[in-house]
Formats: sequence, structure tokens, C-alpha cells
Amino acid sequence: MLKGPFLDRNWMGQNPDYNKSDIIMLGIPFDGTVSYRSGSRFAPEQIRLASPGLEEYSPVFGKELADCNFHDAGDLELPLGNTKKSLDIIENNVEQIYKDGKKVLGIGGEHLVTYPEIRAISKFYGDDLAIIHFDAHTDLREEYLTEELSHSAVIRLRTKYVKPENIKQIGIRSGTKAEWDYMYKHNTLIKEYDELDLFLNKKVFVTVDLDVLDTSIMSGTGTPEAGGMTFDELMGWFRYLKNFQIIGADVVELSPDYDTSGCSTAVAAKVIRELLMIM
Amino acid sequence: MLKGPFLDRNWMGQNPDYNKSDIIMLGIPFDGTVSYRSGSRFAPEQIRLASPGLEEYSPVFGKELADCNFHDAGDLELPLGNTKKSLDIIENNVEQIYKDGKKVLGIGGEHLVTYPEIRAISKFYGDDLAIIHFDAHTDLREEYLTEELSHSAVIRLRTKYVKPENIKQIGIRSGTKAEWDYMYKHNTLIKEYDELDLFLNKKVFVTVDLDVLDTSIMSGTGTPEAGGMTFDELMGWFRYLKNFQIIGADVVELSPDYDTSGCSTAVAAKVIRELLMIM
Amino acid sequence: MLKGPFLDRNWMGQNPDYNKSDIIMLGIPFDGTVSYRSGSRFAPEQIRLASPGLEEYSPVFGKELADCNFHDAGDLELPLGNTKKSLDIIENNVEQIYKDGKKVLGIGGEHLVTYPEIRAISKFYGDDLAIIHFDAHTDLREEYLTEELSHSAVIRLRTKYVKPENIKQIGIRSGTKAEWDYMYKHNTLIKEYDELDLFLNKKVFVTVDLDVLDTSIMSGTGTPEAGGMTFDELMGWFRYLKNFQIIGADVVELSPDYDTSGCSTAVAAKVIRELLMIM
Amino acid sequence: MLKGPFLDRNWMGQNPDYNKSDIIMLGIPFDGTVSYRSGSRFAPEQIRLASPGLEEYSPVFGKELADCNFHDAGDLELPLGNTKKSLDIIENNVEQIYKDGKKVLGIGGEHLVTYPEIRAISKFYGDDLAIIHFDAHTDLREEYLTEELSHSAVIRLRTKYVKPENIKQIGIRSGTKAEWDYMYKHNTLIKEYDELDLFLNKKVFVTVDLDVLDTSIMSGTGTPEAGGMTFDELMGWFRYLKNFQIIGADVVELSPDYDTSGCSTAVAAKVIRELLMIM
Amino acid sequence: MLKGPFLDRNWMGQNPDYNKSDIIMLGIPFDGTVSYRSGSRFAPEQIRLASPGLEEYSPVFGKELADCNFHDAGDLELPLGNTKKSLDIIENNVEQIYKDGKKVLGIGGEHLVTYPEIRAISKFYGDDLAIIHFDAHTDLREEYLTEELSHSAVIRLRTKYVKPENIKQIGIRSGTKAEWDYMYKHNTLIKEYDELDLFLNKKVFVTVDLDVLDTSIMSGTGTPEAGGMTFDELMGWFRYLKNFQIIGADVVELSPDYDTSGCSTAVAAKVIRELLMIM
Amino acid sequence: MLKGPFLDRNWMGQNPDYNKSDIIMLGIPFDGTVSYRSGSRFAPEQIRLASPGLEEYSPVFGKELADCNFHDAGDLELPLGNTKKSLDIIENNVEQIYKDGKKVLGIGGEHLVTYPEIRAISKFYGDDLAIIHFDAHTDLREEYLTEELSHSAVIRLRTKYVKPENIKQIGIRSGTKAEWDYMYKHNTLIKEYDELDLFLNKKVFVTVDLDVLDTSIMSGTGTPEAGGMTFDELMGWFRYLKNFQIIGADVVELSPDYDTSGCSTAVAAKVIRELLMIM
Repeated sequence: MLKGPFLDRNWMGQNPDYNKSDIIMLGIPFDGTVSYRSGSRFAPEQIRLASPGLEEYSPVFGKELADCNFHDAGDLELPLGNTKKSLDIIENNVEQIYKDGKKVLGIGGEHLVTYPEIRAISKFYGDDLAIIHFDAHTDLREEYLTEELSHSAVIRLRTKYVKPENIKQIGIRSGTKAEWDYMYKHNTLIKEYDELDLFLNKKVFVTVDLDVLDTSIMSGTGTPEAGGMTFDELMGWFRYLKNFQIIGADVVELSPDYDTSGCSTAVAAKVIRELLMIM
Repeated sequence: MLKGPFLDRNWMGQNPDYNKSDIIMLGIPFDGTVSYRSGSRFAPEQIRLASPGLEEYSPVFGKELADCNFHDAGDLELPLGNTKKSLDIIENNVEQIYKDGKKVLGIGGEHLVTYPEIRAISKFYGDDLAIIHFDAHTDLREEYLTEELSHSAVIRLRTKYVKPENIKQIGIRSGTKAEWDYMYKHNTLIKEYDELDLFLNKKVFVTVDLDVLDTSIMSGTGTPEAGGMTFDELMGWFRYLKNFQIIGADVVELSPDYDTSGCSTAVAAKVIRELLMIM
Repeated sequence: MLKGPFLDRNWMGQNPDYNKSDIIMLGIPFDGTVSYRSGSRFAPEQIRLASPGLEEYSPVFGKELADCNFHDAGDLELPLGNTKKSLDIIENNVEQIYKDGKKVLGIGGEHLVTYPEIRAISKFYGDDLAIIHFDAHTDLREEYLTEELSHSAVIRLRTKYVKPENIKQIGIRSGTKAEWDYMYKHNTLIKEYDELDLFLNKKVFVTVDLDVLDTSIMSGTGTPEAGGMTFDELMGWFRYLKNFQIIGADVVELSPDYDTSGCSTAVAAKVIRELLMIM
Repeated sequence: MLKGPFLDRNWMGQNPDYNKSDIIMLGIPFDGTVSYRSGSRFAPEQIRLASPGLEEYSPVFGKELADCNFHDAGDLELPLGNTKKSLDIIENNVEQIYKDGKKVLGIGGEHLVTYPEIRAISKFYGDDLAIIHFDAHTDLREEYLTEELSHSAVIRLRTKYVKPENIKQIGIRSGTKAEWDYMYKHNTLIKEYDELDLFLNKKVFVTVDLDVLDTSIMSGTGTPEAGGMTFDELMGWFRYLKNFQIIGADVVELSPDYDTSGCSTAVAAKVIRELLMIM
Repeated sequence: MLKGPFLDRNWMGQNPDYNKSDIIMLGIPFDGTVSYRSGSRFAPEQIRLASPGLEEYSPVFGKELADCNFHDAGDLELPLGNTKKSLDIIENNVEQIYKDGKKVLGIGGEHLVTYPEIRAISKFYGDDLAIIHFDAHTDLREEYLTEELSHSAVIRLRTKYVKPENIKQIGIRSGTKAEWDYMYKHNTLIKEYDELDLFLNKKVFVTVDLDVLDTSIMSGTGTPEAGGMTFDELMGWFRYLKNFQIIGADVVELSPDYDTSGCSTAVAAKVIRELLMIM
Repeated sequence: MLKGPFLDRNWMGQNPDYNKSDIIMLGIPFDGTVSYRSGSRFAPEQIRLASPGLEEYSPVFGKELADCNFHDAGDLELPLGNTKKSLDIIENNVEQIYKDGKKVLGIGGEHLVTYPEIRAISKFYGDDLAIIHFDAHTDLREEYLTEELSHSAVIRLRTKYVKPENIKQIGIRSGTKAEWDYMYKHNTLIKEYDELDLFLNKKVFVTVDLDVLDTSIMSGTGTPEAGGMTFDELMGWFRYLKNFQIIGADVVELSPDYDTSGCSTAVAAKVIRELLMIM
């Protein structure tokens, strides 16, 4: 046999043993319903490759990746063009993770992947489940160009499983008038940290659509939207979330082929590293 | 009112009157089943914008676009994420074109759009219909990752409407073993011009997957494949086709977002201009 | 005839009827005098294509594009290489817009296009006309490399029609010493919202050179200049301008070919949407 | 003083002494009349920077750059936006080169720069002067969008100084019908080497519009046109030209900003190296 | 445990068992001595990721990858900045492969990686070893900028282990005069297939510097050089090589960061697939 | 001789006379130890070319480049692949600058170039020398992948010549746990301007790793790291530094090939212009 040494091709700092890990990082390369620019299917692998460009130590949280005890499970193989079957595969795998007493960290893919994740997780937490939703877009459409299953409708879809009062949205700056009326009516959009406090006793799922970040730092995404957060503003929210019971999370909507400099991919990897620190 | 002058935003050299035109150019921005790199939905508009970079005169055929009498009908609006409904809209519009006694020149979009085109056209020509298929890939899969409706299966799908002996394939250089066996068995793959002659009395539909061209000249496509034709080789085939009864055609699989220099888009526009010359 | 449905190729949310519109969006694809990186001639069409990537609703202003009642008139066809004739065509069309009792929203093209706009508009408003100028550069040169007609001299040129006391400049961070002396002498450069108040009774033309935004969010421009505004800072100024009588505006200097990620074009489209909201 | 060693920033292999050189390489960064994609003003410097990526030895001609005895004079500083004054500066400098008993090798810039070069050179050679024109485009327009001075009219313009029978065109594959009629009438377009032989006793100026090369190898140009020469085909012509009395040459229309891979610039540098070998 | 299905992240069609494989694909991400444009260290992984974009079946050779029985061993981890130590690691691993009775297929990295491969292999084959070298550059420098260990000197370096008469070079089109003299003297450069026949009884190592291909199809490389082979011309040589005893090979000098369209990487993957077919 | 006028190819606003200059700008194109993405060797020339895109006047400091009295010495020619010899050449040239009574402004190249600069300068200033270090990364590794001479270890290396208490670091946001412990122990990381005051009587060398800026504005660098400074924040520090005795400086780690829009290069040029203003 060869002695190498060989490069580790998994996410930097992972625990190679699924069974002994607390968090399962699951690549979900699905982008079948994207309405504008596609390509988020390539994100999980490209983020993985970019991860060694970071350090394993987070000065913000004073911890190393090794302290997070996560396993990189690889990327699901999904039948492109068949949305329903793809969502079922995602749901089944996420459900297994929770049966095994672990938490998921999904790496999209488009935002619709959050829907089967929530469908799976809600079986375990019921009304205790709350969602914290970082995004530029409301994702609250009832249908998008007549299709119910769409990345633009993902949060609305999730309301089948999580009531509006258990959803808080951060960073939203784009949507139809009907969507904004919905946000106002249900008071889902928040601006201050302490508006999250009513979730302190909840089991919280954190979903990060990377376009919540400003286009200046996240150009490699399907629907870039000016006027977003800086990276440090997002980290401010993450620091506050450290005190919550995060039982799952995902990071979605990187489109590496639009990231000509590689910087958006590097930012995505760092968002994931810091999210691991607070899970 | 403003006197301008204003730029014409339609395809260079078109006839603005649908009713008085012989050929209807129809943009079909569909890319829902693409297995590798997506984005052909942006092709019809970007090709249209690139068309004024060409001249209206073709020195190869000694004709001008005005002699082709074609109308640029614009691009269909298709429900992304719903393949079936999208194909129905395409089929209905193409059928109307033939009811109106005209020919279609479809501008994809992915190669699956040929399927509803053929479904529509076969109603008018039945067994007289033959297909000449330029492509790098066989597109003969029985299913692709379990999905029947897929751009990888488009030619096989069309065999429901056109028998294998009425299909000739040119430029193929990639496929599974099963697909190559199918080509050999049905003798669909040809290398010499005169192998087309048995279609001289047929009504011929010409479908051009732009990846038939070499990756050097067609980098902006979803599945680039080395070892393809030069532009002049494709023009050689077009010159031979001048003597055939071409009753419809399409040009598919440009992905403008991978065409960083704009050259693939310019090539696609020129392929379309020359195809108009022989229709 | 074809039933489609077809994609609308005009600016999202426009009123198709010139006569019934209040604001006329006029594409001005001129970039003949650019001193560094060219290509703003491609901006009006690429911004138009990017507009459907936005929503029609502005949460900042609580309005929809339909409420703005604007007409997308298309792009002027200008004789490249003949600056004088190009400026005349621009001036004539803008003059007609004001004869028809409407306002112009010019989409450049380079900044020199503001000059013929102002020449036309000043015929209607005389000394009542004031200019609010967002830019990274002073654009106050007396001549640039010996050419009087130049995008670097556009504001100075306009002083033939608008006195310096009726010009306020925002975001300027680059210029020659002579230009800065001119700004100090005439007190044109402002930093606080209320320095605009002396224009409250004026007829205000707002010209936005997109390089007023930071290079991080506006890389696709001819002369990128570090240290600019964030998008939200520009929106702050727009909110303040809501109370002014804006009788015309333009947005200039996007160079789409330098916008490899498409983000600058998306930002330009959003700047235009928000500008429509306050006109 | 510093001992370095320092990188030589001039064209690889040049003779630093103007007076002792036979050939003067003159950068002409002018792109003021370009009708489609601009940026050839950046070409002379970027080609210079790319030149050390080549070797100084040409295996095709068995010579080294040192044997060519050329001087890199640098790039002219031209008043952007003033076509007439720019052409005068070019003409004056080229005239000086011939007064000094040397030959010019102009590095454009757009193709219009050939016009003042020819104006200058024709003063020295009169009817002995012949032009060999490599290009994808006829460049024979009488006017382009009403402008007489245009890169699309450069060869027609030159006919003021060189009669049509003293012009041969190679590689042309695009033009209006009127331009092609002109070529046929004057028999300027040639396909075989020996059609050049009637120039064996002429003083030949060789002008190379790089878009004569196929778009696959020359994507970084303003008006890419499919169906062009390979590099080796161009070298075939160069080898034949070795026996002619070349008294001047230029290489034009590289647009480095569209050359995302750097390859077009490398090709341009190699074309120039081989052209030096035959001058 | 998770049921997936998961994407296979290894080279398409590999045998996962090292011990039962005949060919060991070894990623060698070293680019420490590159003289012009760097980044070949990223090639092995990006080629691996691109491999599923191909089919497993080669119509040229009528075989599938499964018939090649190769194992993807992953990429070596090399101490960047320490050339000597890196070369030792490469040599040791390659030596082990031959001790285990297998063949290596090295995936560079820069061309210098061939040097330790040959050092290792020559221990097993001595004077029976011959090298077939596809490249644009002679790689015969005695030293490059005073450094003996350099990718520009790799073939010269190998002459310590393989005599010049056991080296044949194909596709060379660039080098210093001294290097060309060396080639002529030792008759290493060949143009016809049958010039290889004197190696029919040799153990042949095939080294493919991807810049042997024309820049049009291989833009993503460190030192692009116009006038190279088409893909089909390279395949012609590969078909001829089918009858030789190939005991090892490598494919080097892809620089993925210069491959903006992804096409060069796709071409590299296909070169490797076809090389596997003849090993 | 030619009258031109010719473009000045040196840094805008330089003094052409080394002997009469106070500051020597020295291009140091070395990137031999870079661990992630390379290419900073191309930075000095590309920044030089971008410099005329700026104005010579700095409104922040109210001065012109002519007031800075600096000479652009060009770029050192360094033996790629030989780190030790390269560092010696750098050291010798910098030492000469100080022997001549001048200051250096080094333009990297990777960050390791600071090491020989400091080695040279420390001979003149001894314990009076202090370092102000702008960077995203600690650069304090004891070794990187077993190599002592590495851009990741540059600050630690410098501690051989400058004691930790004479080093202050600004903008650091990435490093190993050991590196952060080192920073805490030696109190090198500062956040407030006045923490610099203990250097008021020191001879200060300012080293600017451009990745101290946020990735949004500095995408063209080897190791992009989210969460960095805005350009204006860096200028705030520069304004404070105006009162210090800056006896040398460098600006490093631009990688132009990753700067697809040209903006990072423009930012680098502006950082250098402002740094000249305070030296």
C-alpha cells in the first residue's frame, strides 16, 4: 500500500466516524426549481474543497473545528429533473440522522432543500420546532409561475409544519407585496437580536440563504440582491444564537459557477465553520 | 411621440409580420432537466442580442437574411420546474405554426425541447418525417437517473414519433455502450454526406445541438466534449442540406453564462443565420 | 397567431403606452469618449434583461413599479464615433419628452449623456433647474486630453446651463487638485442630507454615476474607485429626495462586460427601480 | 544606485537603440470608432507583458528575435475622443520612421490605425505600395452608421492611397453584399499563395487583423467571427511572404479585456514574433 | 447509518481496491517551480470532479473504464515551497506502486513531477525504459534562471536516467535555440507514427504535457502556445500507442484557475480516460 | 527620433531620477512559497498599469503624488524556485536604498518579501525599528507544512530582528490557536488608534497585506478572508499614521489573475497612493 501522505478530501476538521459524531454535515446538491440562475448543485463539493483555505480555529468563538464533533457524510445523489423523488431522498436521510440522535447541517443546493429537512425534523420536535430564517428574499410565495414546489415558496411550504409564530426572518429585503403583507401580518421579520428571545426554549432550526449577505461579498448566488448584511453583521447574529438550542441548520444557494474569484465560496465555507461553532 | 432612431431589439433581418413570414423563429428558454451545467434558458435572448454583431449577408450562400423571410416571435414563457406543462406549451405553439402553414426554427434551451417540437410536427408529416441530428452525444438513453423526460433521452423519445430508420446522426462522439450499440444496430450514425441521400424525398427536421462543434469554438455549453467539428465542417453539411426539404429546425444547448468571451454566443448566432439560409 | 405565453422583453412593470405614461425610460447606449474602460453602451439592454430578477415591489418605499407609471421607450440608435451627432439625437429626444409633458429617466451609456439631457431640459426650466450629482469623480475638468466633449467634463459642461450654486455633488472622492478647488470654491460637495434643502423649491435633475457606489458592489464600471457608498447609504439619500420635485434623472456608467458575476447589473437595476419610486 | 537585477519591461529581444534598429515597433492604443466591443487600446501593453512567455527563438524560421533588429518605441499617447487628432499623431510618427530609413511594425489598437500608417508610407512609395490584408471582415464600407472614419471602412479609406489592384485580402468571411461585390469586382480576395506573386516587385505593407484567426484561438477581439484560420494556416502565409519586400506591417484588434484566459494575448504576441521574422 | 444514495467522489469508473487494481492513478498537486502562470496544484482534484461529465465508454477504443481496472489513490500532500522534499515523496510513492507490480498514472501538477516518477521507474526497467513526450515545449533547458530543478528542464533532467536515444518528443513547437539544436542532434523530435517503432520492444513511459494541445482547446495551462495539436490528432497518436508496452504515464500542466469555461478541465479528463484505455 | 507623445509606462507621478528621490518604489515579484492561490508575482506590473486610472491628487491628504517625491525603480528579476537566492537579492537591493539615505516602498509579491526587507532595514535602525502589520492572517506560524521560509511565517520570522513588543498587528481575523495565543501573550493585536502611540518615537515599517481589506473589495488575493476592513477603515488608520516616522513600507499579496473585474488592482493602486502620502 501507498504511504502518501495523502490530502484529506473531506471537510477540514471533520470526525471520520458517523457514529461518534454529534453533527452530520450533509451535502444536498439539488437545484431543480431555480427561477433565475442555477448551479447551486455544485456548491457542496466546491465549499468542501475550499475549506482547507480556512483555519480550523475560530477567533470569534475561541474554538476549533475539532471541538464541534461533526462528520462530513458526503453529498446525496439525487435524480435531477424529478423534484418529488429528490425531496423524498433528502427527507429520508435527514430523518435517519435524527433517529440516530444527531443534528443535521445541510449544505445546499437551492433553498427548497429546507422543506424536506423540516418535514423530517418536525416529526421529532412537533410544535417545539422554531425556524430562524436568514435570507434576502421572503420565500413566501404561494406558488411561483404555477408551481407549488419551488425555492421561492420554501418558507410558506414550511408553514405546513411550523406555524408562522414559530418563524422569524432576518435580513429580508425583497419580495412581492403579498409576501410583505404576510410578513407584517404574522410579524415574522425582525431587526433586533432580542426579538429572538421567545425562541429561547424552542428547538431552533437555522436556515441561512447566503444571499442574506450583501452582493458585494456574495456575488456567487442565483438571485443577488443589493443592500444586504456584511459578514460581521451575520456573525453578530451568530454570536447571539450561541445561547439557543440549535437542533439543525442549513446553508444554501451558493452558485460556484458565478463566483469567478472564488471569494463567495470561501465566504460560504467560513459561514459554515462559524455555524458549526454555535450548534 | 419620440422620433428616435431606436435600436431594433429583434433578431437582425427579421420580418416583423408573423402572417407574411415563411419561417417562425421561436425562443424556447427551457433547461429544467439538464444533468451537468445549466443555463441554456438564457440562450435565446443572448443570441438575439448578439445577432447584430454579424452581417446580414452570408457569403457562403450568397444570400441575405431578408431573403429568408423569417419572423422573430420572441421567447415562450415557461413554468420553470414543471417539465410536462412546459413541453405542452412548446408543442401547442409549434403545432399552431404548422397549422398556419409555416416552419419553425426553435432556439433552445436544452435539447429536450426538440421532443415537443417533433410531437407537434409529426402530426402533419407522419412517416414522411425524418430527423437529421447534429450532436456530440447520442441522446439515446432509455432513462437518465430514472427520469424518462430528460435532455439525454431526447432522440430515443422521438423514436416514438419517428422510426430509427428515419433518423441520421452526425458528429456523435460520446454515449454509453448501450447507446452506441443502438446506433450501430439501427445504423443511425453517418460520416459521409451521401448517406443522407435516402432522405431526399423526406420532410426533414434538422436539430443542431451546438456541442457538435468542438469545445474550442463552443465552450459555452452544458456538456463540453472534445474532438468535435470545426465551424467549417458544420457548414459543409449545411451546404449539402441545401438540396433537402427542410420543414423545421432547432438550435439548442448554448449556455451563455459559461461563455465568458461571448464567442460561443456569436458562433450560435452565425449557425442560426446559415441554417436560415438553407431552410 | 401564436398564443404563447411570451416573455415580456421590456423593463419589468412598465406601461406599454408612451402617451399615458408619466416617466419615459430612455436607453442611451453611448460610450464614445470614455478615457479608461469602455462598454457602457451595452448597459441599457443588459439592465433591462436583469430587471425581472428583481421584484416589482419596493419594501423601502412600500410601492410597486406599476405605481410609477413609466414607459420603457427602448434604446436610441446612435452613430458611434460621431460624438456631436450622437449628443444631438439625445437632446432632440429628451426635448420631445418634455414637450409631451413627461419626465425622462435616461439609462446610459457614459456620463457625457447627461450633457444633452440638461441642454434639453434647461429650455423648459431655466434657472429653476438644479442638479444633484452622485458620483465618485468630480467630472469638472475643463478639458480631458484636449477634448472639450468628454465624460470627465460633463458637470463642468453643464455649468453652461446650470449655475454652480444650483449643483450639489454627493459621494465625490476623486479628482484633480483644480477640480477639488473648484468644488470648494463653489461649495458644491455636500455630506449631509439637509444641505440639499435649498433645492426644495427647485426643479431637480438627479444624475447617478454608478461608481458613486463602492467598487465592492459596483465592479462593473469604467473607472472603479475605492471608498464609495454602500447601497444602503445611497438609499438613504433617495429616501431624503422623496420630498423634492424631481423632474428628470439618469443612471450612467455601468459596463456590463466587466461585471463577470452579473451583480453590478443587478445593482444597477435596483438603483433604477428605487429611483423610479421617488420620481 | 540599485544593482537589481531588474526585469526588462520592453518587448522581449528588442534593440534598445532606436537609431541602430531596422524595425520600429510602435504601440498605437486607439479604439475610438469601434462598432461592437471595444478595448483594443489596452492591447499594445498587454502583448508586451505577455512577450516573455514566449521564447526568443522561432523554430519555424530558425531565427531569434535578436536577428530581427527591432526597437520597441513604446505606445503613443492619443487624445481619446478626437479621432482626427489621433490619426494625425499616428501619421506623423510613422512618417518620421520612414524619414529615418526604417520600417514600422504598428501594434493596434483598432484597424482604423492602418489608415494613417498608409497615408504616411504612401508618401515614400507611391504606386509601388501594395497591401496584403489578413482579416475576417472586408472593412470596405463606404461609411458605417454615417461616419466616414471608421474601423469598418479602413481598407476602402486606404484606396485613396493604394489602388484596388494593389490590395489583396486573405481570410475574409464577413461583409455586406455591397462589400462582397466590391471584392469580386476588384478581385481583391485570394485563396492561393501564388495569387500574391504579382506583388513580388512591390513594396508590401502587411496588415493583420487578428480576427482573421478563428474565434477558437482568438476570442479576445471586438468582433469574433467563426470559421477563421488556424494559427498554422496563418504561418503558412507568413512563410510564403518571406520572399516579399515587406516595408511595414501592423497587427490590430486584440481586446485583452475579453481574453479571460490570456491565450489570445499570447497568440497575438506569437503572431508578432513571427511577423518580425519575415520583415 | 445513512442510506443515501451518495455521490461517488472518486474518479468515475475506478476500482476502489488498490490491491486488485492494475493501474494506480496518483494525484500529484505540485507546482513549485512554474516560471509563468501557476495553479496546476489544483488540477488533480478538479479533473476528478469533472470526470462524471464524461461517459465511461470510449467509442474510439470500444472499451469502458471498468475494463481498465484502475484505482484512484487520491492526491499526495506535498510540502509547498520545498521542492526537494516534494520530489522525494513522489518518488517513494511511485516506487511503491512498481514494487506492488502495478503501473502509475500520475496526474500533475507541473511537468517537473515526471522527474521523480522516472527516477523511481528507472530502478525497475533500467535501459529498457523509453519515454514518449507530448509537449509544446522542449523542456530541455540545462537550467532555468539558474535553478536546476525546474519544470523547464524536466526532460533534460530525465536524461540522467534515460538516454537521449530512448526519448521521442511529439508536438514540440517552442524552445531556445540551444534546445532545438539538442533535439536535432539527438533526433528526439518526431512527426510520423512509425518513428516510434524502435520502441516496440521497450517499456514505454508516456508523459503528456497538456499544452501539446492547441491553445484553442487547452487555454487553462501555464504557458499557452499557439499552433498545437487538435484533440483528434492526439487521439491518433494514442491509437498508434495501443500496440506498445506502456508501463506508466502522466498528464500534467492543467491550471484550472485559468480555465474559465471549464472546457480545458473536461478535455484533460477525456485525455486521461483515453490514456487509461491504452495502458 | 520620434516625437510621440508617448505614454509614460512608469508609476504615475514618479520622479524619474533615483538620486533625487526620497522614496524608492521597488517591485518584488516573488510568490514562491504561497500555500493556496498563487500569482502575486504579476502584481507589481499590473498595479503600475492601473495607476493612471487614478488621479494624482489625494483629497484625503490634500496632496499630489508629485509632493511625495518617489522613484519607480521597476521590478526585481528573481530566480523562481530558489527562495533563498530570491530573498538575498531583495535584501541587497533594500539595503542599498537605505545606504543611499532613502526609504523603500516594496510592492509584492507574497508576504514573505517583508522578511528580507526587515533584515536589511534592521541593520540601520536596530531596536528603534517597529513594525505595524495590517493583515487578515497572523502570519506567525513557526513553520508551515515543515517549511521555515513561508509567507505564513513572515511575522514570526521577523521577530528575529524585531522584538514582539515592537510589533503591532491590525485587522487580524484568522490564524491557528497557537498563533492567537502568541498574539494574546505578546499583546500584538490592537483595535484602537492610540494603541499605536508607544511607537511615536520609533522608526516604523508599515506592512500592508491587502487581504486585511474585506474580500468584497479585495477578491484578487491568494487567501481571501471574510470580515475584513472597508477601504475607508484602512484610510482611517493611514490618517492616524501620518504623525509617525515611517521609514519604509510594503504592500503585498495582490493576485491579479483572480481579479476578474480589475477592481482589486485599482484598490491596490489607491492604497499605495495613499501610503505614499503618509511616508
